[in-house]
Formats: sequence, structure tokens, C-alpha cells
Amino acid sequence: MPGTPPTRFVYLGPEGTFAEQALRTVPAAEHGTRTPARSVPEALENVRSGDADAALVPLENSIGGVVGVTLDELAEGEPLLITREVVLPVDFVLAARTATPLTSVRAVAAHPQASTQCRRWLRTYLPDAVVVDVLSNGAAAAGAATGEYDAAICAPIGAARHRLAVMADKIADHPDAVTRFALVSRPGPPPPATGDDLTSLAVYIAHDRVGALLSVLMELAVRGVNLTRIESRPTGEALGRYVFFLDCAGHVADARLGEALQGLRRVCADVRFLGSYPRHRWTATDEDRPVPAPAGLSDADYTDAAAWLARLRTGE
Amino acid sequence: MPGTPPTRFVYLGPEGTFAEQALRTVPAAEHGTRTPARSVPEALENVRSGDADAALVPLENSIGGVVGVTLDELAEGEPLLITREVVLPVDFVLAARTATPLTSVRAVAAHPQASTQCRRWLRTYLPDAVVVDVLSNGAAAAGAATGEYDAAICAPIGAARHRLAVMADKIADHPDAVTRFALVSRPGPPPPATGDDLTSLAVYIAHDRVGALLSVLMELAVRGVNLTRIESRPTGEALGRYVFFLDCAGHVADARLGEALQGLRRVCADVRFLGSYPRHRWTATDEDRPVPAPAGLSDADYTDAAAWLARLRTGE
Amino acid sequence: MPGTPPTRFVYLGPEGTFAEQALRTVPAAEHGTRTPARSVPEALENVRSGDADAALVPLENSIGGVVGVTLDELAEGEPLLITREVVLPVDFVLAARTATPLTSVRAVAAHPQASTQCRRWLRTYLPDAVVVDVLSNGAAAAGAATGEYDAAICAPIGAARHRLAVMADKIADHPDAVTRFALVSRPGPPPPATGDDLTSLAVYIAHDRVGALLSVLMELAVRGVNLTRIESRPTGEALGRYVFFLDCAGHVADARLGEALQGLRRVCADVRFLGSYPRHRWTATDEDRPVPAPAGLSDADYTDAAAWLARLRTGE
Amino acid sequence: MPGTPPTRFVYLGPEGTFAEQALRTVPAAEHGTRTPARSVPEALENVRSGDADAALVPLENSIGGVVGVTLDELAEGEPLLITREVVLPVDFVLAARTATPLTSVRAVAAHPQASTQCRRWLRTYLPDAVVVDVLSNGAAAAGAATGEYDAAICAPIGAARHRLAVMADKIADHPDAVTRFALVSRPGPPPPATGDDLTSLAVYIAHDRVGALLSVLMELAVRGVNLTRIESRPTGEALGRYVFFLDCAGHVADARLGEALQGLRRVCADVRFLGSYPRHRWTATDEDRPVPAPAGLSDADYTDAAAWLARLRTGE
Repeated sequence: MPGTPPTRFVYLGPEGTFAEQALRTVPAAEHGTRTPARSVPEALENVRSGDADAALVPLENSIGGVVGVTLDELAEGEPLLITREVVLPVDFVLAARTATPLTSVRAVAAHPQASTQCRRWLRTYLPDAVVVDVLSNGAAAAGAATGEYDAAICAPIGAARHRLAVMADKIADHPDAVTRFALVSRPGPPPPATGDDLTSLAVYIAHDRVGALLSVLMELAVRGVNLTRIESRPTGEALGRYVFFLDCAGHVADARLGEALQGLRRVCADVRFLGSYPRHRWTATDEDRPVPAPAGLSDADYTDAAAWLARLRTGE
Repeated sequence: MPGTPPTRFVYLGPEGTFAEQALRTVPAAEHGTRTPARSVPEALENVRSGDADAALVPLENSIGGVVGVTLDELAEGEPLLITREVVLPVDFVLAARTATPLTSVRAVAAHPQASTQCRRWLRTYLPDAVVVDVLSNGAAAAGAATGEYDAAICAPIGAARHRLAVMADKIADHPDAVTRFALVSRPGPPPPATGDDLTSLAVYIAHDRVGALLSVLMELAVRGVNLTRIESRPTGEALGRYVFFLDCAGHVADARLGEALQGLRRVCADVRFLGSYPRHRWTATDEDRPVPAPAGLSDADYTDAAAWLARLRTGE
Repeated sequence: MPGTPPTRFVYLGPEGTFAEQALRTVPAAEHGTRTPARSVPEALENVRSGDADAALVPLENSIGGVVGVTLDELAEGEPLLITREVVLPVDFVLAARTATPLTSVRAVAAHPQASTQCRRWLRTYLPDAVVVDVLSNGAAAAGAATGEYDAAICAPIGAARHRLAVMADKIADHPDAVTRFALVSRPGPPPPATGDDLTSLAVYIAHDRVGALLSVLMELAVRGVNLTRIESRPTGEALGRYVFFLDCAGHVADARLGEALQGLRRVCADVRFLGSYPRHRWTATDEDRPVPAPAGLSDADYTDAAAWLARLRTGE
Repeated sequence: MPGTPPTRFVYLGPEGTFAEQALRTVPAAEHGTRTPARSVPEALENVRSGDADAALVPLENSIGGVVGVTLDELAEGEPLLITREVVLPVDFVLAARTATPLTSVRAVAAHPQASTQCRRWLRTYLPDAVVVDVLSNGAAAAGAATGEYDAAICAPIGAARHRLAVMADKIADHPDAVTRFALVSRPGPPPPATGDDLTSLAVYIAHDRVGALLSVLMELAVRGVNLTRIESRPTGEALGRYVFFLDCAGHVADARLGEALQGLRRVCADVRFLGSYPRHRWTATDEDRPVPAPAGLSDADYTDAAAWLARLRTGE
């Protein structure tokens, strides 16, 4: 029912990964059901089919890799809407059934992307251990819990869920690395503007037009709309045919973003609106505070200009 | 009274110049009064004060010089509106009280700009004649009529009005040179769009902003609005502070020109709308035929994009 | 030794994946050694350390995921150079130890990204089979070879290497999907220009500059340099600090690309040149044939303009 | 002889006008000959033919009108070079043979543009006087000297030369209005860069190219070159075919201006270099002090980028 808050949540599983940890930061999810999905497509199909109200899936992360699937799924099939972003520090821990000296660790289970992220730490502290590839951070934690491996590289929530002892935390090479997740629902009114929002778009560009991307950026620049992310993705047909995923500062309800969206709609082969939602803020003193609308680009400036044009047209 | 067609016309005098000739091409002027003014400011003040309904003044010409005054007058004081442009070939003639062999012409009266335009002809056909500067083409014709000078360089209408014999016509060095005039009225609804219109603007740019002109052009380019003329003029305060006079293809009633105008209104220090009016056409096969709206920039495209945005905002 | 052709090749393993298949298309690799590496970082470190002459790693693919690691590795650490791109159709097959009717297949081993790419086919032809996630396409083929699974989704080379019977080929949902690989060496002179080349760059943009990406694109557009790919990647420090990976049409030896590179070098926080190399061509009639330099942007035009400027400066 | 300082000067006459006053501010002209020319074309032809070394002609002024002829003459025929600009306050005076009360002045001689500039003053102080049009400010002064008119509106130098009494000074309506003149020579090395220079160009744009002017401005903007003036002029063939006169901040010897010039040379139908010369400075504390090269656009940045590109190309 439109307007009803979501109660049935899915997330990219298995249990005990960063995605579950991210979902736990969404207040409504604490009171609803939280079901792991086997893949991003499966999670999103649960929402499309109505079996779930919202899905928490990774959008972008320092580990790489999963983003593509999410973006492709959002760009194709029945439209879905991002209603919230969750940004989580990539906070790997080394965990084991019981705490033991590092020197006794011979086999460490890890997702290949996790061990890549902790390469420097592994080289320094576990130079002689064998790293065994497993399919997810959750599977690594589970393997350590059964004793199959001496230890696991996993998310804090994975250690907690499997009652593992944390032997070392913050072991990722980039201490500030984060992962960004999206909470995705079926189409409906976007959440209200907060003054510090992001808008996500999938923009299709005709293949053979030189300077097409420049045109897209000019549509944004002329309305003072700042880009915070851009990805070109093959459309799946062949390399060379692209869709651009853009994250823009602002909300679809803002006058200037609205005009920019109309401009993209007119000049691009296709534009899919993926949602407007509050930007993640770490703290109130976040240095990345919202850039106020440049001179002449506030909603009031738009209203004034529209009234002026109306006067010119009628001659009054 | 608004809506009443103009009947009282003024034009840049004196009688017998190109301005009068241009006014005679305006159908309504044939049935109204036609009064010469001593200067462009005087002609426009007659309209502002209500003593005349419309003024015919030069905007731009191959001879140069007069444009500046007209532009400055339109940009300052009470607003006025260009409702029509008239483009006239610069068609100088050599005329005299009676036709005589060229060898007997010793003194030719000419406005300095007219003799400059006919320099090559004078050098070839009247190498020994003295050219006497006079204050206007009309004054030259008048001087030939009184016999004060052997001949005059003047407009065809000047020769006709003073019953002079035309001894040589089309004597200007550039056979295709033209002069462009504007018919100017008090503010009111612009004439309806014809599909091939021009819009004139005076755009003020803050002095200290690097790239300000580029911003102006990007506002136009993003909406596919083509410039047919641009002039920077000192604002009269000092060199270095400028107003730009722009002629844009399109009509204020067009969606894309309307959006571009709103953009200029927002980002420029000031914008004065000087009118939308049909572009002068020489013939139906004119090679400068109107450029159709680029893909995505027609009124229908604007309507579609606005409806799409409304759907996004409400989530329907 | 500089100038010596590479003889020791590494590729992203394990054996029997698309990366090995791609390496086999490189003529020199047929006569050299071909060693699988456990990860992209390991493959590239082999080259950096001198243990290998060249590495074949995935750059971009319809499957997604691996790209990020490769790009990050190329952007950081000791510089490396892409000297060749290899584009391979994503041509998944279903293979088994012996050919059996599809109805007898109960367990299929597949890398999660491979099963995602073949979802439609699996739903249609193996609706009741269980898909077991494994760590690579090569591991899937190996598992089918040992009989651990009834069948595997793998690359043709994986089936061949493990002497599997191909029960179905071209089972990917997007028949035209491809993967793009890079052959990477230590720095040195780029391969000579062919008239149809690509240049890859990593461009760092100061975080707090509105419109910075537009500036980058304008540097390219003004020199008529077309972008074929753009990716923004977090720098690893935090989300919001980005490096852009650009693929541009043209060769570093081209005048216009050279000028554009210098422009990027001047206006960006940093630019890393990742290589100029021949663009992959499918056939001689490839519809994506090279766009000739736009008017005024050929090497000859650059030479002419430089000579003209020299004359202006000396006054000769 | 190249390198010889000019000694024979011409200026737009007649004697006693602002042009003569401007020439007197050029040190070399004090020791050389100063000859009035009847028109801008005549002055420039004297330089082209070698009869004079340099000509002082008006470029731009608040009075309007003369600019066009100068620009057209510089853009056509044998090339000439602007080597210096002179900016003069428009400082009209009312002068007469003998000082008399204003109430006794009935006829005032004035060039029409001069009386236009002093309209407000005339309306206030000489509401009943008749203004008689004459052909130049110099002619007005001469007419007052002979007693043909009671007074003249003229330049201070005109009053001095004709030994007139100045009855009122600074009578122009815009107290800060100025006129800008150019000192023009035959082609040769431009004067050395001073760090605060202007470069003048005539740029021809193909008629039928939408967005051509935007391309020109982008060539400048990408190199951080600021425009201080832009004029579109009909080419003399017909309206609609334009040449743009640009004044750019910077010197042809500057790296970034040089690169921008080469860009214009490549993308425009034609570019004529009209000279690089020191910008006029009123005082050392002039608020319009030169904008330093934006980040990345200094000569040193260009040198660094060129060296970097050379390294990329050779692989060293």
C-alpha cells in the first residue's frame, strides 16, 4: 500500500556480511523482517515482485566488483527507486573460534576482495599463513566458526553472529575506505528534500555522437548541478554502447535539478530516474557540507525568472 | 491605446535618407504620418513620450557608426520594444540637378561615411572631383538640388525627393552591403511568433567575473539557441564595464528561448528584453532559411519533459 | 632489456578462464611462457618486479567486478603501461565430463557472475538444477572434470583444457557481451600509432572544485578528442575523492591528443598516463571505424598553426 | 627600416580633436612629425604606403560610430599592427572666442555625436541655444574662432589650438566616459610583453556553423584567456556573415595565449592578428590590475607539461 513504511527487508547475503551490518543502521529495519538474498538480482526481484518492501544492496565500494551488478539491475527491468543511502566504513577484522597467538594461525579464510584489501596487514602480521579463498565474508566467518580454518577475515557483524573472538580489528590497508549501499523500493514519491540530497540517474547516450557526454555535463553545469559520481557502463549489448550512472547533488524537487533533468530527458536517448534521497552524513561537522545553490540558481531565483518571462510574453 | 496599430511614425531624418526609404516599406506607415527626427535619441523620445507611435531607426549597417547610439538608447531609459526589422540594400547613387557628363563634375557633396563606402568608384570615375563633406545623405541631395554642388552621393529616395537626375547607380564598393533598421514601439505584447523570428537582448555582465560571457553563451547553447549578432558596448560608465547586445534566433514565446531567457535573467547582472519580431526575408528561397529546432528542443519536447518531471516528483 | 619483445607472460588465473583464452590471441605469447597468477595485484607485481615481462588482466567486462581492482592497481604504485587491448566475446558454455541429457543435470558449478550472466538460459533449460557457487570459471570446469558437479558454466578454453564435453554453447543472456583485457608492461616507448588507437589515463581531480570534470571534458573537446570510456573511482581514501579513468580515441603521438594531455596535466591535480595502443578491431568492415580528425585538428593543422604563431611572435 | 622608432605620425584629423590630443601622449610623437588625415582609411593608407610610420586612430569610444571604420580597415587590405593603445577621458568643453555669460550664447557649433554626449548639460545650461551640426569637433572650434558661432563644444586641445576661452569644462553627461585609440604600424615584431598586455584579433567564422562562437570562446576559456571586448561586424559582403573583433588579456608571447591563438587558427575560417601591446593603465593603483595566470596556466606550467609529454612519447 503506498505510504505504508516498509517492514519486509531483504539484503545481499549471506548473513554476517557488511550488507546486513548496513541494514541494521536503518531504523525501520530493526522492527521489520530482514532476509538475506543470494545475489543482488535476487534481492531486487523480491522487491519488484512484492515479496519484499525494500532491498539493501551495495552500490559502490572500495573493494570493487559488486557495483556493476547493482547498477545494471537498477537500469534495466521494472523501475525501482533508491530511497536512502548507507555508507559504512570498511572495517575488516581477523577473527577466530578462540583467540590464539597470531603465530599459530596457518590457514585464513577470506573472500578474495577482502584479502586484497588487507594485503599489507597480512604480509606484515601473517607472512607465513595460507589464505584460502571463499565466496563471501560471511562464508569466511562461518568457516572459522566450524574450525575448518584457523581464522577468518570478516566484517565485525560476521564475527559477532558466529561468536568469534576478534584477534585484530581495522586491518584493512586503507583505514578510511567505505562501502556505499542503497535501500531500494518500488516506485513512489521520493522522500522529501532535506537541503542535502543526492539524485541518481541512468543516462543513455546515442553511440555515435561525438561530444555527447560533454552535452550531458553542460546541461548540469548550466544549472549549477554538481556531479559526485559518474560511471560509464556497457549497456550489455557490446562494448562501446554506454549508459552513464550519475549521482548529482540536489533533489528532484529542486527547481534547478528539475530543469537539468528535463534537459537530459530532451537531449539524451533515454534517462532513468533512480531516486532522490538524503546524502549520508557522518557528523554534524562533516566537512563535505552541502554547497548552497550558486548565485541565481536558488528556487527563489527560478520563481523570479519565470514571473519575468511571463511578463515579457504578455507584454504587461 | 494598446492593440491599436501605430499611425504616427517618426524616423531618423532628414528627409531623403535611407531611414525614410526603409519606413516606406512598412505597410502601416504608408497610411500614417511620417515625421523626420533630428537624431536617434529624439526619435525614440517621441515614442516614449507618446508623441509618436513608432520610430524607425538604424540598428546596424555596413557604413557603421549610428548603431551605437541606437543600442545605447534602447538599453537605457524607459523600455521600448523592437516590433519589426527592415533590411535595406545600401544602394548609393550619384545624382545631380541635371544629368551631365561625369567629366564636368568638380564638387560632389557626400556624408563622410557615404564617400568612404564609394571610395573605389570615386577614384575610378571621378578621380579629380573634390568631395565636400556634409552632415547627411539628405543634406547632400539638398545641396545638389540647390546647385551648391555639382552632384551628390545619396540614397535613391533622396534623389527622387529632390527631383535629381541619377547619373550612376549602385556605386557603393560592396554591392551586397545592407543597412538594418528597427521599428520601435512602447512596451506591449510582442508580435506573434512566425517560426522565423529574432529576439534582441541587452545583457549586463558583472565586471569582475572571468568567463562571464562564456556562461552567457552556454545558457544559449544548451537550449540550442543560435546567436546571429553580438556586440559588447561600454556601459557609458567607463571602458571595461560592458553590456552585450545579442540577437538570437527564435521568439520569446518559444519554449527553448523562454528557458534560455530565464537562465540569463538568473545568471546575469541584468537583462533587458528588446523585442521578438519576424526575421527579414529577402525571398521565399532565401538561403538563410530558419534552422529547425535541434533534436529535443522543440516545444513538444519541452512539454514532454515537463510532464515527465511532474511524474517523477509525485511518484505516479 | 628495453626493446626486447616480451617472452614471459602472466595472466589472471586460474588456468582455463577467459584471461588465458585472451592471452592466447597475442602472437608473442604463443612462443613464450604463460603463467597464471592468483589475482590481478599478483599478476601486476610480477611485472613490476621483473619476474614477468607482461601481464594479461581484465579491464572491463559485462560481468562486472574485476575492473576496479585492475584500475586501482594501474593507478597506484610503480607506473605500468598498457601496450595492447584484447576484446573477447563472453562465450559461456555448459560443459560436463561426458555429454548427458540436460534433464540429468542436477548440480551446476559456476562463478556467481557467470551464473548471473546466464540466468535466463538456466531458468529455461535447467529450471530444477542447483547452481553451486565456485570461485572462478576455471574452478567450475575443474569441478566438473572431477565429477564433483554434474556440469559447469565455463569458458570454451576451460572445457578444452579439462577435456569436457560441451553440452550447450553461447548460453549467456547477452549474445554480444564481451570482456576487455589489457596487456601490461613496464614503462617504455608506447607502440607506434596506427591511426586507430586508444589512450588510457587516470586523472585526479581536486575534491572541492565544482565543475572540475567539466573542465577535464572541455580540455578534450576543444582538441576534438573523443571519450570512449569514463569511470570515476574512489581513490581509496574515502568516498567523494575521485580518480577518473578515461579512454580517449587517439595516440599520445598525435598532436591534438598531446596538447589535450598537456592541458590535463596543467589543470588536474595529477594525471597518470596508462598507455596508447591499437584499438581492438573485429573485422576490416567494423562499423566503429576510426573517426578522422575533425576539421582543423589533424597533425598537419597543428604544424601549420605552430608555424603561423612563430611568424607572429617574430614579426616576420 | 625595421627596428627604427617611428618619426612620421598621422592621426585622424582635423587638428584640434581628441585624436591629436591622444597622439600628444605618445612620447615619440613629440619629437616627430604629426600630420592630420581626413579619414581613418586615409591615415592607415599612409602607413601602408610607407608615407608615415604610424597612425593614431580611434578604436572605440563612448561616442560611438568611428570604431567600425577602423576595425574594418584593420581587418582588410594589407595587414597592420597595433603597437600601443591610448585611452583618453572624453572631456568636452564649451569654448568661445571670448568668455561671455552663458545667457548670451545663441548658436553653439558641435559635431552631432558631441552634442548628443552633452545633451543633459545643454538642456540645463543652454536650453534656448540653437545647436548647429558641424562635421567634427575641430570644425566646431574653428567655427567659434572665426565668430561664425557664439560657442563650440570641442576637445580641450581644440580650444587651445584656436585660442578660445573655455567657458565650461567637463560638460559631457557621463563624467567617466573615455575614448580608446590605437597606434598602428606596419607589421613587425610586437612590443615586448609587460605582464599586463592586450592582444587584438579579427576572427572569421564560417557562416553556417551553429555554435561557432561558442567554439571560439571555449578555445580561449580552456587556456584561461579572458576577453575584454568582443564585436561582431558584418564582413561587408552581407549581414549575417561576420567577423569578430576580440581583445584578449595577454600577449602573443605568453604560452597560453599562443596556444589559444593556434586553436583559433585551426578552428576558424580565418584569424588576423592585430597586435599585442601594453594595456593602458591610469595609475599604479589601478583597480583593474592584471589577473595573474590561473592555476596551471603560467608559462612555467606550460614548460612543465611539454617536458612531461616529451617523456611520455619517448618512454623515458
